[in-house]
Amino acid sequence: MQFDELSPRTLRDPYGYSGKWHFYPEDVLPMWVADMDFPISPAITQAIVERLQERVGYPQMKGDYRLLERIIQQQSQHGLEGLTPENLLLTTSVVPAIYASVLALSSPGDEVITQVPVYPPFLNVLSEHHRVARHNPLQPTPSGWEIDFEQLERLVTPRTRMLLLCNPQNPTGRVFRRDELEQLAEFALRHRLWVMSDELWADLIYEGQHIPIASLSPEIAQRTVTLTGPCKSYNTAGLGGGVAISHNKQILSALAQVSKGLGGHPNVLAMAAWRAALEHAQDWLQQVRAYLKGNRDLITRFMQQHLPQVGYRPPQGTYLAWLDFSQTPLAQAAHRVILEQAKVGLNDGRMFGPQYQGWLRLNFATSRQLVQEALERIARVVQAVD
Amino acid sequence: MQFDELSPRTLRDPYGYSGKWHFYPEDVLPMWVADMDFPISPAITQAIVERLQERVGYPQMKGDYRLLERIIQQQSQHGLEGLTPENLLLTTSVVPAIYASVLALSSPGDEVITQVPVYPPFLNVLSEHHRVARHNPLQPTPSGWEIDFEQLERLVTPRTRMLLLCNPQNPTGRVFRRDELEQLAEFALRHRLWVMSDELWADLIYEGQHIPIASLSPEIAQRTVTLTGPCKSYNTAGLGGGVAISHNKQILSALAQVSKGLGGHPNVLAMAAWRAALEHAQDWLQQVRAYLKGNRDLITRFMQQHLPQVGYRPPQGTYLAWLDFSQTPLAQAAHRVILEQAKVGLNDGRMFGPQYQGWLRLNFATSRQLVQEALERIARVVQAVD
Ligand SMILES: Cc1ncc(COP(=O)(O)O)c(C=O)c1O
Ligand SMILES: Cc1ncc(COP(=O)(O)O)c(C=O)c1O
Repeated sequence: MQFDELSPRTLRDPYGYSGKWHFYPEDVLPMWVADMDFPISPAITQAIVERLQERVGYPQMKGDYRLLERIIQQQSQHGLEGLTPENLLLTTSVVPAIYASVLALSSPGDEVITQVPVYPPFLNVLSEHHRVARHNPLQPTPSGWEIDFEQLERLVTPRTRMLLLCNPQNPTGRVFRRDELEQLAEFALRHRLWVMSDELWADLIYEGQHIPIASLSPEIAQRTVTLTGPCKSYNTAGLGGGVAISHNKQILSALAQVSKGLGGHPNVLAMAAWRAALEHAQDWLQQVRAYLKGNRDLITRFMQQHLPQVGYRPPQGTYLAWLDFSQTPLAQAAHRVILEQAKVGLNDGRMFGPQYQGWLRLNFATSRQLVQEALERIARVVQAVD
Repeated sequence: MQFDELSPRTLRDPYGYSGKWHFYPEDVLPMWVADMDFPISPAITQAIVERLQERVGYPQMKGDYRLLERIIQQQSQHGLEGLTPENLLLTTSVVPAIYASVLALSSPGDEVITQVPVYPPFLNVLSEHHRVARHNPLQPTPSGWEIDFEQLERLVTPRTRMLLLCNPQNPTGRVFRRDELEQLAEFALRHRLWVMSDELWADLIYEGQHIPIASLSPEIAQRTVTLTGPCKSYNTAGLGGGVAISHNKQILSALAQVSKGLGGHPNVLAMAAWRAALEHAQDWLQQVRAYLKGNRDLITRFMQQHLPQVGYRPPQGTYLAWLDFSQTPLAQAAHRVILEQAKVGLNDGRMFGPQYQGWLRLNFATSRQLVQEALERIARVVQAVD
């Protein structure tokens, strides 16, 4: 792949296909919504073209069994064993599975715990559906972001019903260690919580090892629904595809119940793409991961050298950098100033938790050159205000 | 197109892609779920292949504006004028829009009127979401199915909130006349009902003219949400795509609200396919329609000659024949006996309304030869029992 050859001129296609490239004005470098600027694996394109040779009427509603087998195999490689197709429920993408999990496993008025900062739909689903959000802020330590387990205990009340886990974590890029996951699992079991574990980023990690929380014991498996999909690893967000996985089939029935009708049926091209990704895009994925790791390392060096006043801890996974401008002169205005003066479009931290004004999320899944350019633009603005 | 060359051997693909062809055992001719056995227009395939040359990340959430413009143009050809992209809300397919309409425009305990027999999700959404269904059975008359307007008035109570209309009607194939639609609109306005009008079959009609109920007056337009999509006309059910249309933007906001999260985001290949269908598959559609009309006429002749005891009124639209076996010796057992003895897989009438046991829905969107074969198999069984 020619990762370095990406050009804003071609990325900003004339038809507005890319939400990322068409949200901000033309002179802004868009490094916000989580997709990559790289073209998808040719194996995926080819599989879709081949699938179009067959009928594209209603599929079997359970999904293509060969895709289900591949997903089972992928989970088993991560250590989540003993799944059969009955433990899988396909969804049109991962967000619908997040919503269905919360609707199925909690009731209005119930309290739901999640670490923050976190992917905005985790918070939105709670407020839109009248669940009480209990935030457990990740703690910045010299060695990186850590879960505050003492506070976690204090958050529990008799109305606490559920824990929403994002691992690898969006936006901090944390890949939780086995000991942390064990402590979370013990916590969830002791308080009889349901666990939704969004593991969509599992195959984009640079250090550590992805461990599905449901793999830790049969007991936690019975209380967990694991979510994943193809869109982050293989850059197919516009094609969709998601899956809810649980050893507890009653959890899946409950999800199916709440999403019935509204959720739509499986898309045959999304299934073909996803299967091809798991079967034939592993080299592509490895190359992308290596390139992204290089971008991550570039950011780490750049921040140390040029922007030490910006809070930053290198992500162990994801292609997201979570940046704290609150101690810089930009402070609470960082999102606006960087957009207007640096002409770099980032995600406003406030979406990831109300206390994160002055924080920004930067998506570095683009050419190294554009990452460098964005960092320089940001540094110039921060330094000018200094 | 070589409509006549369809063979069960190739239609029953080895991978189980087709839900229709893989639900029943191998010796059964499947003529149930509503998709066509014909291959899709090459223009659609080509548009998808071309779309794959561009990025397939997250699209603009409102949808491809060129698709929205085409849908607006199509509606205008049907007489629904004055739409802008703000009057359209894309959904992953039409069923999610049915569910969202009912959830947005009525509350638990509200009464909702619909003509029966009707497409099963109309009934399912009401029972699953605790709306009270009020059935207004279509009346079989010598000239065809007619709405019983006197009964319609008697069904209204202070809790009646909504009318669900299917036009062209699945399963009877009725295409409602202007005078009927005017009477329905007047009824809805007088009782201040919201109207959901599912017009998905609008481009597959043989006689009469499709009239969107919302086109009748600005007043009824303000109380109506019109639903459509590409999947019936262009045989793309596995690709998805649907749209809710209303001159009343508050209706669309309410739909967006209830489907937020669960509904998923637009699929970029579905949008490309739908746009290509509207732009480049009109000849294809015309040929398909002519062929289906021939099938319909074959059924009409066959029923008169060989199965006069089976209740049947030629559909004016759709590729569905709605057959009453209740006066034959098969009576209530018709679905099972035809499946087991004639080896023809039809839809059980009970799904379309509890009173339709002994009725069956036959999908005739296949080669003429297979339609003939199915009819002969059915006739042999009915005559054997006679
Ligand atoms: C943790 C997480 N879950 C879900 C999603 C969205 O997935 P989808 O596009 O499949 O709905 C994202 C997208 O960034 C994400 O970061
Ligand atoms: C009246 C009607 N509405 C909706 C649908 C389903 O549409 P979709 O597959 O787009 O959800 C059908 C399918 O047969 C139908 O007949």
